[in-house]
Amino acid sequence: MEVRRRIVVVGGTAAGPKAAAKARRMDQHAEITIVQREPDLSMATCGYPYYVGGSFDDRNLLLAAPTGALRDPKFFLDVKGIKALVNTEVEAVDPVAHTVLCNNLLTGEMTTHPYDKLVLATGASAVVPPIPGINLKGITTLQSMRDTDYLRQVRDAKAAKKAVVVGGGLIGIEVAEALRLSGIEVTVVEMMPQILAFLDWEIAKLVENHMRAKGVHVATGDRVAEFLGAGERLTAVRLQRGVEMPCDLAVVAVGVQPNVELAVAIGLEVGDCGGICVNEYLQTSEPDIYAAGDCIEVTHLITGKKVLAPFGDLANLQGRVAGQNVIAGNKVTFPGTIQTGVCKVFDFTVGSTGLSEASARRNGYDRIVSMVTAGPDKPHYMKGRLLVVKMVAHAETGHVLGVQCVGAGDASKRIAAAAMAIQGKLTVGDLGNADLPYAPPFSPPIDNLIVAAHCLENKMLGRVHTISSTEFKRKLDAKEGLFVLDVRGPDEYEAMRLGVGEKLIPLGTLRKRVNELPRDKGKEIVCYCKISVRAYEAATFLTANGWTNVRVLEGGLSAWPFEREK
Amino acid sequence: MEVRRRIVVVGGTAAGPKAAAKARRMDQHAEITIVQREPDLSMATCGYPYYVGGSFDDRNLLLAAPTGALRDPKFFLDVKGIKALVNTEVEAVDPVAHTVLCNNLLTGEMTTHPYDKLVLATGASAVVPPIPGINLKGITTLQSMRDTDYLRQVRDAKAAKKAVVVGGGLIGIEVAEALRLSGIEVTVVEMMPQILAFLDWEIAKLVENHMRAKGVHVATGDRVAEFLGAGERLTAVRLQRGVEMPCDLAVVAVGVQPNVELAVAIGLEVGDCGGICVNEYLQTSEPDIYAAGDCIEVTHLITGKKVLAPFGDLANLQGRVAGQNVIAGNKVTFPGTIQTGVCKVFDFTVGSTGLSEASARRNGYDRIVSMVTAGPDKPHYMKGRLLVVKMVAHAETGHVLGVQCVGAGDASKRIAAAAMAIQGKLTVGDLGNADLPYAPPFSPPIDNLIVAAHCLENKMLGRVHTISSTEFKRKLDAKEGLFVLDVRGPDEYEAMRLGVGEKLIPLGTLRKRVNELPRDKGKEIVCYCKISVRAYEAATFLTANGWTNVRVLEGGLSAWPFEREK
Repeated sequence: MEVRRRIVVVGGTAAGPKAAAKARRMDQHAEITIVQREPDLSMATCGYPYYVGGSFDDRNLLLAAPTGALRDPKFFLDVKGIKALVNTEVEAVDPVAHTVLCNNLLTGEMTTHPYDKLVLATGASAVVPPIPGINLKGITTLQSMRDTDYLRQVRDAKAAKKAVVVGGGLIGIEVAEALRLSGIEVTVVEMMPQILAFLDWEIAKLVENHMRAKGVHVATGDRVAEFLGAGERLTAVRLQRGVEMPCDLAVVAVGVQPNVELAVAIGLEVGDCGGICVNEYLQTSEPDIYAAGDCIEVTHLITGKKVLAPFGDLANLQGRVAGQNVIAGNKVTFPGTIQTGVCKVFDFTVGSTGLSEASARRNGYDRIVSMVTAGPDKPHYMKGRLLVVKMVAHAETGHVLGVQCVGAGDASKRIAAAAMAIQGKLTVGDLGNADLPYAPPFSPPIDNLIVAAHCLENKMLGRVHTISSTEFKRKLDAKEGLFVLDVRGPDEYEAMRLGVGEKLIPLGTLRKRVNELPRDKGKEIVCYCKISVRAYEAATFLTANGWTNVRVLEGGLSAWPFEREK
Repeated sequence: MEVRRRIVVVGGTAAGPKAAAKARRMDQHAEITIVQREPDLSMATCGYPYYVGGSFDDRNLLLAAPTGALRDPKFFLDVKGIKALVNTEVEAVDPVAHTVLCNNLLTGEMTTHPYDKLVLATGASAVVPPIPGINLKGITTLQSMRDTDYLRQVRDAKAAKKAVVVGGGLIGIEVAEALRLSGIEVTVVEMMPQILAFLDWEIAKLVENHMRAKGVHVATGDRVAEFLGAGERLTAVRLQRGVEMPCDLAVVAVGVQPNVELAVAIGLEVGDCGGICVNEYLQTSEPDIYAAGDCIEVTHLITGKKVLAPFGDLANLQGRVAGQNVIAGNKVTFPGTIQTGVCKVFDFTVGSTGLSEASARRNGYDRIVSMVTAGPDKPHYMKGRLLVVKMVAHAETGHVLGVQCVGAGDASKRIAAAAMAIQGKLTVGDLGNADLPYAPPFSPPIDNLIVAAHCLENKMLGRVHTISSTEFKRKLDAKEGLFVLDVRGPDEYEAMRLGVGEKLIPLGTLRKRVNELPRDKGKEIVCYCKISVRAYEAATFLTANGWTNVRVLEGGLSAWPFEREK
């Protein structure tokens, strides 16, 4: 008789069930067991904020297969032939004896499960900082179904009027939106100088401005020093800068950390980022133990360094790889990540793939070029919505290192395309000739991503000299005596303007009004318009006519992150 | 004094103005002239169907810059310093003397314009087949502003009740939608066995079914034999198969052909596809003459063959390349196309990039694999909409050769990402581990494109044996005595079913109901469910339990192009 392989998977959320299901498809006779500490399986954790925010009202959708079937142990057994132990914690793993000791958290029963191959998919946990008052009632994370139920009940019962979200990362921002959509006054407190650290500052600022426009308060560069309470209940937070903000709800979302206690107890290698070390087969330092999902470190495909990449999609892909390798041996690999991410922030889509300018510099890239561009995501006659794109490339090779894209337009598509371009090692020049799908309902004739590549190429070739919004602002604040040239039309100027002493000369009249420009041909001139396309034309004209220090404001007014007069 | 370069551009729609504008940015002192036969410049030709169909009502939007400025000769002169001669036809080019002889169509005045470099951007014209009655009133193409104005006036005046669209290609389908949205009863007549020839038959059929659901009649495999009239007016069409269809409007959209008369007269090389031959710098056989846009042949980046690629986005990219090279010498290249395209068809988005299975076979690829998959474009709790994906790959190398994607979901994003993947020469395996942006408002945890790669990989590795809908239908029609197994739930079966004598055994009960399966383990079994994910699980179970001839219906019922009982 055939010997049945025994596969034990620790963790039942994303990577775990995926590994188990894939192992089952690879081997119908294996004995496959999932051990899950939570009461639920295959929870749609990324969907929690959308349930809290009212995108849908049926809690079961978070726990059910698309067919409507609840993904409980019976489902796993009947449909997939997988034994799932819920409410069960792994107490110990003996890597020599190849056994897992489990504790049923409801009954206290201890059981031992032998394995041939073990998969650790222990996930990550929300970091809970040791802030005084952290245990007051009304403070939660958004990490589990219990948290989700709590916040949804707050929404439904209208039990909170003011909330503080601690942390302006992805989850913090999603929670802030969900609570705001629940009618709660929300303040996001972020200790860094910006929200959404995967974006460069000036891009994150555009998102922050949009959040403010939607009624969310954002306090960056500050942190919660203390949670204040009346009795056991939260009543306010005190920020480090001294402000005290009344609130009846606080959600802590300062990040997640890999759950590696079990791995450490087993004696597995853990890396510098705090995740379990695995090779490209997702095998740990113990050959019969694999790991997948938020608990591991993976290779960053651009920098080559190990990073944490706690994304739900990658957890699934890794589960699929581990599930194959535990059955078939080390046949397939998970090469790594470029840390692609996207989120919805009210009417904005916010995405990033590859390296931001800041992350590139942090990773030691110094020969990089970047550029911010802006433009509608469809032709104006199809009511295109604005997108701001920042592209970062390697100055010598021209390889695209990263793309950020935010705005009311379809950023998700541009980030998906950019992610594939980076994974295909395309250069800025390649992207400039890319054959992307075009039709008026979906994109402008030259897609935003291609426009970004064209502009960055022009900059790399010295055809245009640009100035970033932050540098321009610094020069304005330092009163460096720039000549600021707005080349839009008078009606546009009436509707919106910087108000920094700029000169308005519409592009169409510029050729006739050169006498209104500085006599000193060396004077620094900064041109802009709405998206800086007309400004680019103006700058080439001025440069060709002898002005030697003409710069174009990257992204124009559409990407201006600071306040305007109007 | 500096000698001013003289650039003449023939054609003022897409590639021409782009080449001229780019040349201007490269050289502010050049003398740049556009010669345009039409009265208008830079018309948004791809927008014509959307104006006709009422997506917007302001005709000027088709002729204006996003700022609202009309792109007339004054605009070109004032804003870009480019002289634009409209209503002007080029009578002759003397490539030795380097002159262009122009005829002002309004005044009859002939002028001669010297050039250093010439750019031909003469575009393409709608093919008008020599069908009897073709000159009757009520028959038009949708090629020019005049055509557009005519059709829009028909819409506004409710001047047509029944229309026939001759040709089921991209423009025909867009026109059909526009007319249907104008309240007109529409029949599309296509001589090929399918509409949208860039799609494989079974994918095109899904689009055709959707069009029928939206009230458009579609007659494939037929052609218009004669336009019938009362006096000068169209009253009906007679089809080759004999049917006579009353109609008061016909739009001919059987394709476009490059306008090469001028190129031929100059003596330039014209290729087998009928377009002007250019090298990668877009230089014609006459070194001082470049060509760009719909009038040229370009390299197909997968097959290496020359093809026509009359797409508005490529015309712009080519214009940009030609505009640079006429100023700076042959510095930049246009490498070619993978014939990426997308269109909106009522609630469907329909896209393709690279080779379809049929085009791959036509181009001599025989070692290819393909697979159709289906699934929602977002999690079910976010109301995901269906997408059907067909991926075609090279069997040995695994390189992705093409992706088609259609459905109510966001196909545009998947085609954009797939286009970049193909341009980056990614394999099915690479795509299976792709790091794409994931958040519930935008995609399922495993994106449709990645699911397609996983399934195709499973097929390539022999882990799943699939059957296409067409082969399955053929076997059903031939009464080959298949055992047909539907593994969905009873409620799903009640709502929709094939009705071909299938056995319903929900996946969750399959392990207990093996006795209901054929005793003959060699019997051919075809499994399916809604999207064939459950069917895949069923098939692996059956195969592991001794059935040797189990196949999964590709894409399940969601990709079934034929009629169903329910």
